[in-house]
Amino acid sequence: MTVSEVNEFVGEVFPQSKKYGWIAEEVRPGFIRVGMKITEHDLRPGGTISGPTMFTLADVTAYLLILSHIGKVALAVTTNLNINFLNKPVMGDLVAEGQLLKLGKRLAVCDVKILSKVDQTLVAHATATYSIPPVK
Amino acid sequence: MTVSEVNEFVGEVFPQSKKYGWIAEEVRPGFIRVGMKITEHDLRPGGTISGPTMFTLADVTAYLLILSHIGKVALAVTTNLNINFLNKPVMGDLVAEGQLLKLGKRLAVCDVKILSKVDQTLVAHATATYSIPPVK
Amino acid sequence: MTVSEVNEFVGEVFPQSKKYGWIAEEVRPGFIRVGMKITEHDLRPGGTISGPTMFTLADVTAYLLILSHIGKVALAVTTNLNINFLNKPVMGDLVAEGQLLKLGKRLAVCDVKILSKVDQTLVAHATATYSIPPVK
Amino acid sequence: MTVSEVNEFVGEVFPQSKKYGWIAEEVRPGFIRVGMKITEHDLRPGGTISGPTMFTLADVTAYLLILSHIGKVALAVTTNLNINFLNKPVMGDLVAEGQLLKLGKRLAVCDVKILSKVDQTLVAHATATYSIPPVK
Repeated sequence: MTVSEVNEFVGEVFPQSKKYGWIAEEVRPGFIRVGMKITEHDLRPGGTISGPTMFTLADVTAYLLILSHIGKVALAVTTNLNINFLNKPVMGDLVAEGQLLKLGKRLAVCDVKILSKVDQTLVAHATATYSIPPVK
Repeated sequence: MTVSEVNEFVGEVFPQSKKYGWIAEEVRPGFIRVGMKITEHDLRPGGTISGPTMFTLADVTAYLLILSHIGKVALAVTTNLNINFLNKPVMGDLVAEGQLLKLGKRLAVCDVKILSKVDQTLVAHATATYSIPPVK
Repeated sequence: MTVSEVNEFVGEVFPQSKKYGWIAEEVRPGFIRVGMKITEHDLRPGGTISGPTMFTLADVTAYLLILSHIGKVALAVTTNLNINFLNKPVMGDLVAEGQLLKLGKRLAVCDVKILSKVDQTLVAHATATYSIPPVK
Repeated sequence: MTVSEVNEFVGEVFPQSKKYGWIAEEVRPGFIRVGMKITEHDLRPGGTISGPTMFTLADVTAYLLILSHIGKVALAVTTNLNINFLNKPVMGDLVAEGQLLKLGKRLAVCDVKILSKVDQTLVAHATATYSIPPVK
């Protein structure tokens, strides 16, 4: 799938994608980069971006990374996600870089780095496993 | 802290708590139970509850569990959260049961089980680590 | 499988089981308790038990827990293991308590607590996912 | 620390390092590469390398990566390690590549990839958190 195909697909499966402003910025074998707009809704007291907002970006990035390789398998589901919060992000948009660690018949494993678009700080790192439904 | 003190605190620190309907249902040494209302906003295509919704409940439960033991330390932050999605939840409200595995000076580790209120199925399991700021 | 069947099986698949002294002490639906002898080989400078020793006990416990439910499927393999080290163990034997969180057709997820046999302190907590090979 | 300083240190703190053949092959800011010899002791039935062997390599790599940046702080301890086993390794030596994701005052987080030296397959991926003792 190309960048524009991925972005068309995002709009189809995630009705909330407009609100979150997820957009695939680059797609190539084994890699994806996904941008996310941060709004007031994503903030925690003190002006920092909430953990669930970063989790959501990591999960969506892994999902799009896998689908860009195997096609539109809407039923792929997250089975495990491990996230480390590394640095308090400054206010501003985020970008996630996803790398395929494994793409098997039953499981796919992705590495996702989340950075601030403002100052390029690495703010979180996640590893996500998706279960891929059997082909019928 | 008692159940009502925890719930008062939830309203203060999480402006979005009303929307999510988080409510501490039971608080005792080493344990908390937190309920969450599920709305259309939390659904994924196919009628299932989204991963980020369950992540959010796990994170909030761990936070409230720790604060109910050490008092209102608003600066405690999640450093690591590992979540396994176990069974596709049926539509309906969720409940989380949090247990303290460790409460140290610098780190607290919590085990969180998320169940469906409809049929008591275990839908997700998380382990969360919070960093506790030094006392000044 | 009964306790004695599990222990017979341990000897077959793990040639190193004698050295490690792994022994199933209790087996019932959804649960297993496995003891482990600690020797000088498992120590780190300072007299503490090494992380890899605890990882090994967690991994073996999850494996035996699954096999005690589905029978001898030697090809079940760990796909993910997340471990939190909670308290520095005193010198002495360990015991692990494993609980099945999920036993699906393709994946099984186990929760494992590791305690010191000396003072019952919880020293580590792990969550392990095993992939179960398809039945032919 | 240089490669030879790291290797001298390995011999001091890990008496078992000779047996395991751990050797730092490259050390630079934010990065380390550590080789490991595989012996019969590390095998599982079927000729594959055991999970605990790969866990041990991931843990040692993270430890050496951190110490090469902050000096010999023997008391740094693993608090969390999450490992995904990706591909069954062929028989033969392993190499681990560690990258610092965060080096804070209290916590350091490392990303570790484990590859087969035989065919360069990525066999496992780990994320490890170490707690760093306060400077007195």
